[in-house]
Amino acid sequence: MTGVSTAGLTLDLGDDGPMTRRLTTALRDAVRDGRLPPGTALPPSRQFAAEIGCSRWVVTEAYGQLVAEGYLQATTGAATRVRDIRGATPLRPLGIPPAEPRPRFDLAPGIPDLSAFPRTRWAEAYRRAVLARPTGLLADRTPIGIADARAVITDYLVRTRQVREDPTQVMVSNGAGASVGWLARVLVRLGHRRIGVEDPSWPGLRDAARRAGLEVVPIPVDNHGLQVSRLDDHPGIRAVITTPAHQFPMGVALSPDRRLELIDWAERVGGLVIEDDYDAEYRYDRRPVGSLQGMAPDRVVLVGSVSKSLGPAVNLGWVIMPQWLIMRILAGDLETGVGPSVFGLEAFAIMINEGWYERHLRGMRTAYRKRREAVAAAIEEMLPDCRISGMAAGLHLLLELPAGTDADGVVDRAAAQQVGVVSIDRYRLRSGRNPALVIGYGNLRSGREREAVGLLARAIRRT
Amino acid sequence: MTGVSTAGLTLDLGDDGPMTRRLTTALRDAVRDGRLPPGTALPPSRQFAAEIGCSRWVVTEAYGQLVAEGYLQATTGAATRVRDIRGATPLRPLGIPPAEPRPRFDLAPGIPDLSAFPRTRWAEAYRRAVLARPTGLLADRTPIGIADARAVITDYLVRTRQVREDPTQVMVSNGAGASVGWLARVLVRLGHRRIGVEDPSWPGLRDAARRAGLEVVPIPVDNHGLQVSRLDDHPGIRAVITTPAHQFPMGVALSPDRRLELIDWAERVGGLVIEDDYDAEYRYDRRPVGSLQGMAPDRVVLVGSVSKSLGPAVNLGWVIMPQWLIMRILAGDLETGVGPSVFGLEAFAIMINEGWYERHLRGMRTAYRKRREAVAAAIEEMLPDCRISGMAAGLHLLLELPAGTDADGVVDRAAAQQVGVVSIDRYRLRSGRNPALVIGYGNLRSGREREAVGLLARAIRRT
Repeated sequence: MTGVSTAGLTLDLGDDGPMTRRLTTALRDAVRDGRLPPGTALPPSRQFAAEIGCSRWVVTEAYGQLVAEGYLQATTGAATRVRDIRGATPLRPLGIPPAEPRPRFDLAPGIPDLSAFPRTRWAEAYRRAVLARPTGLLADRTPIGIADARAVITDYLVRTRQVREDPTQVMVSNGAGASVGWLARVLVRLGHRRIGVEDPSWPGLRDAARRAGLEVVPIPVDNHGLQVSRLDDHPGIRAVITTPAHQFPMGVALSPDRRLELIDWAERVGGLVIEDDYDAEYRYDRRPVGSLQGMAPDRVVLVGSVSKSLGPAVNLGWVIMPQWLIMRILAGDLETGVGPSVFGLEAFAIMINEGWYERHLRGMRTAYRKRREAVAAAIEEMLPDCRISGMAAGLHLLLELPAGTDADGVVDRAAAQQVGVVSIDRYRLRSGRNPALVIGYGNLRSGREREAVGLLARAIRRT
Repeated sequence: MTGVSTAGLTLDLGDDGPMTRRLTTALRDAVRDGRLPPGTALPPSRQFAAEIGCSRWVVTEAYGQLVAEGYLQATTGAATRVRDIRGATPLRPLGIPPAEPRPRFDLAPGIPDLSAFPRTRWAEAYRRAVLARPTGLLADRTPIGIADARAVITDYLVRTRQVREDPTQVMVSNGAGASVGWLARVLVRLGHRRIGVEDPSWPGLRDAARRAGLEVVPIPVDNHGLQVSRLDDHPGIRAVITTPAHQFPMGVALSPDRRLELIDWAERVGGLVIEDDYDAEYRYDRRPVGSLQGMAPDRVVLVGSVSKSLGPAVNLGWVIMPQWLIMRILAGDLETGVGPSVFGLEAFAIMINEGWYERHLRGMRTAYRKRREAVAAAIEEMLPDCRISGMAAGLHLLLELPAGTDADGVVDRAAAQQVGVVSIDRYRLRSGRNPALVIGYGNLRSGREREAVGLLARAIRRT
């Protein structure tokens, strides 16, 4: 039986599941979409049961459920009636387009080699984390993340990033965007109204600050990194987001003088420096420059994640905070971040403890170094009038185009050839003079460097 | 070699790792902690290398690294000197106490049976998710979560919670606390200043609203749930957090009249009802009452999670939003949530698709029903002068103590016997008259019900 009629209405009861549920759903749907208008009297349960050929109990159960939910009204000695449901607007599907697949030649910055994601290791580490965690700790949700895994991450960061910290100063998060959004909200609670950001810079982080209610003030960047002295042009600013190890997208490191100048500034204004340590794992000419946080742990918050090392699908990051800040968070004064699952966190700790994480990084460093050299060689050969810069570290380089080139046109023509590439204007807050492309080689397939650069060169020359 | 002396200082070089790194670290530490004060001249590299017995290259590398990091200053033709590092405050470990283990008899509400967490199934679902996700989609991070898994969750909620939605209206989150914190921030951006909360209610959610900057206004609860008419006492309020299916902690369902009254109120003030659907999976006397969201999808936001079904360690939840709200989020007007890892989300979708999730729920419903009956029977026998209420659904009941009982004293004495239990005052915003305990039986070990209630009865009688 799939269709029955009552009160002048045909109900589709379907064939699946217990009869009570089918009748309840059919009646609820009819009330919701207006086929049973407010005030309609439903047949007495005995009569209705006879009509649709089921036991009376089924009908009384369905009526009872819908009375409890507010769709029907039962009055002793009178018929059960449909109530007046407001807000019963029909739903229109929104038709959001699905995520677009990445282009065949993926030269967009910010993406590591997705095909190198260590699936088996990660699944194994996660499995161990799920099976090993003591039952009594399965409900342990501290605001900053579980202690044992934080200690492992701390130890790793002390070793590789020269941070200075007590494990208690590390808070885990869902990644850098989540960390900066959270920090921005904390700054708002601390009375900040504006925040300095590098110009150019990664939009994801400054947008997160903006959505938290901070006004974003562009601070220019030159060959020595953030122009720290320009912070003093804006007396209201007491916080800044910066990329000292490898400026995004210019690719320079903050000079030693500027590092000290920045810490001086933060001390002077009683402010906070947010160090976005986004790709510190990859430096090709020397050991990575140590973190700024390590020099001034009371004034610098370090934000890191595994998005460029393992991959963005893991959604795992960390924040290292000054003690005065974490004390206020633990005291409940400020919003706490809501971190990732303890299982993901433990899995990452297992990856570190087993040596899998560092082994993966070593392998990737070699692969990226090769890919970087192949891309650079192809550019030098095929695009001799373009200058490369900023490639001492990280997963991207800056390709300066001949003066007057329409970079947006290049991006569009490249896209038509399945080459994804981004103009520097995408990252600028104030319009800049020099056309340039930001070329990420992280997710470009090895061996396809010449092919990709060849297609790009054609898109550039056809201006 | 572990210790060397230079510039009147003994450096501990350790034994582990390459010499360059060991020397760099030792020098950096000495600058940081003030043993090498600002201005100190370091020995020329050749002399230093001879002193510590290494190649000169090691010393120049270490100096170079520390110059780049801003710790040392190199001047041509003069000695390399220590720079003046501000902010070099020594770290004092914070000494945060580790998470406390749960008591032997865990009667705190809000915790499901931790020992029943389906570890093997969850690890297997996660493994499949990690291995199966197409490489090209490993960097797909939409603000609301990946489309395929959201469709599966939507389908599940339509089936079990009678929600009305298009899959695009579902946003995934790290759990109910994260969802409500996020919604509260969105409300602030939309101009809200205050929010109504049930009194009594779960503190986690109202604290999240408070930290977002909303003033929390207590609205009393009676035997029919939230006293909706009292919302009109506060003309400034246009949003409320409520638990219609099973009021926490009173355990009543919002009456049919009140459901309609609440939707009317939301329509009238142009407001938003946040439906906290925290334990809707468990109802023992009938099928769970359908969601309020299903009646008024334009005015109700449903907040749910797997914290009570799978467990809090998974950190996975969802928000079903009106279309007008999700459109503004997708347009980038409002802060977007930063959701959990796509792997966790896909794993949950696999749990649903394989039928593992509903099978687990069925098993738990049976186990909890038994446990609930055993607890109730033990209470009736051993605490005849206490009244039980609110146990038709969920994982807790309310135990009303004899008038004049000091509930805090009971909680303390019970804790001393390894019985964890919570006074209703913990959940009240305004002090109430009647002493009561909120008894969660979700994480109480099966077969220990009499023992736990016996210890509790002793703690109550010893007043």
